[in-house]
Amino acid sequence: MTGTLYLLPVPLGDEVLPEAVLSPQALSVMRQLKEFVVENEKAARQVLKRAAIETPQAELVLHHMGKHIAETDMRHYLHTAKNGGEMGLLSDAGCPGVADPGAVIVRMAHEAGIKVVPLTGPSSLLLALMASGMNGQQFMFHGYLPIDQSERRNELRRLEADIQRRGTTHLFIETPFRNQKFLQELLQTLHHSTRLCVACDITLPTEWIRSCTVAEWKKLPAVDLQKRPAVFVIGK
Amino acid sequence: MTGTLYLLPVPLGDEVLPEAVLSPQALSVMRQLKEFVVENEKAARQVLKRAAIETPQAELVLHHMGKHIAETDMRHYLHTAKNGGEMGLLSDAGCPGVADPGAVIVRMAHEAGIKVVPLTGPSSLLLALMASGMNGQQFMFHGYLPIDQSERRNELRRLEADIQRRGTTHLFIETPFRNQKFLQELLQTLHHSTRLCVACDITLPTEWIRSCTVAEWKKLPAVDLQKRPAVFVIGK
Repeated sequence: MTGTLYLLPVPLGDEVLPEAVLSPQALSVMRQLKEFVVENEKAARQVLKRAAIETPQAELVLHHMGKHIAETDMRHYLHTAKNGGEMGLLSDAGCPGVADPGAVIVRMAHEAGIKVVPLTGPSSLLLALMASGMNGQQFMFHGYLPIDQSERRNELRRLEADIQRRGTTHLFIETPFRNQKFLQELLQTLHHSTRLCVACDITLPTEWIRSCTVAEWKKLPAVDLQKRPAVFVIGK
Repeated sequence: MTGTLYLLPVPLGDEVLPEAVLSPQALSVMRQLKEFVVENEKAARQVLKRAAIETPQAELVLHHMGKHIAETDMRHYLHTAKNGGEMGLLSDAGCPGVADPGAVIVRMAHEAGIKVVPLTGPSSLLLALMASGMNGQQFMFHGYLPIDQSERRNELRRLEADIQRRGTTHLFIETPFRNQKFLQELLQTLHHSTRLCVACDITLPTEWIRSCTVAEWKKLPAVDLQKRPAVFVIGK
């Protein structure tokens, strides 16, 4: 008999407690587990402590996943779940499997016949989409846009053409320390009638969300996005 | 001074209580509000009752949004928030603004300078993506595929080509009473090596999730998806 892998969201920053933003179902499962696959051990220990889990830290079993770890080296991580036990999967922030390396572990769980149970918590992408006021019936998340400036501009023009043709909403992110420069570039590159939403520090006390046309953005006072996690959304 | 529009998720079915799947933050805001824009009045009254809101039903102010209501007829809905008050936006199921008509109201709120606050709760799309074990760094939600069978098959082939070329994960839905036929068609149309995830009754006691290749799906015992809400995910 095989066990269960619970996909457990975590808060989007240290300024908010797990008990405020996770569903009670997710929090209650998290508190009872002893073994986790995690993106970052230090971050995981901290969030589990803040979630007031029952098991003492010294008795926790944590397996470190990451894009630099070979899949074969992670095969044994799910041993407990393969043998009928319960385990959790934790991202650094938000929902495991979305914009993080967790998907590989979930796929391995399916291949081993382990039951996969996704639980509810904050996702900056989904919350940004909701808050954007743009088409939520057809949308695409791109991760990071190309680093090369001319490639990135071409990609933005391609997305704008798609917005005009099909009305799709497009979401992307940037490394937080490049956010400020990225916003300037978006305002320079995008058509004045394109709608742009920037959703920054979502669910945190400093949450800041603005959604309007590029023309309107250009009239706004400058905003400080530097080193603040943000999701960028464009559409019509 | 303008007010606030809270985007409030609701459970994905009657079999689960709001207090189990909404974030405590969302539930606490919902309980204190008196005025809402809603997709369906009957469903909204029921979910607000189950969430144990403080205001008696007779004193609630509900505005009905929908794709068949002209935007000009909804302009006055946000009157209270325009004048400094607090309001909520409710979908029939899941997160407002995602795969529902709520985005129009959110855009109107931004245009009126109303603060928009998205709160955390269940989204069948996001939970299906997490549970699929497929690429969560680049994904697209398509809503419904074309109704015409040959157009739909062409679209599926186009998506498979995109999976091969760019590794994008694709999500779509079908009207629940057509789910069974749709699954058969997917199994007939998709390449045997394409990964398919079906996530059905997510967060409900009858939750059923399977993610494997089309070749493996064909060996599985038949599953009853009829009239059960499901999200379909394909990728590699």
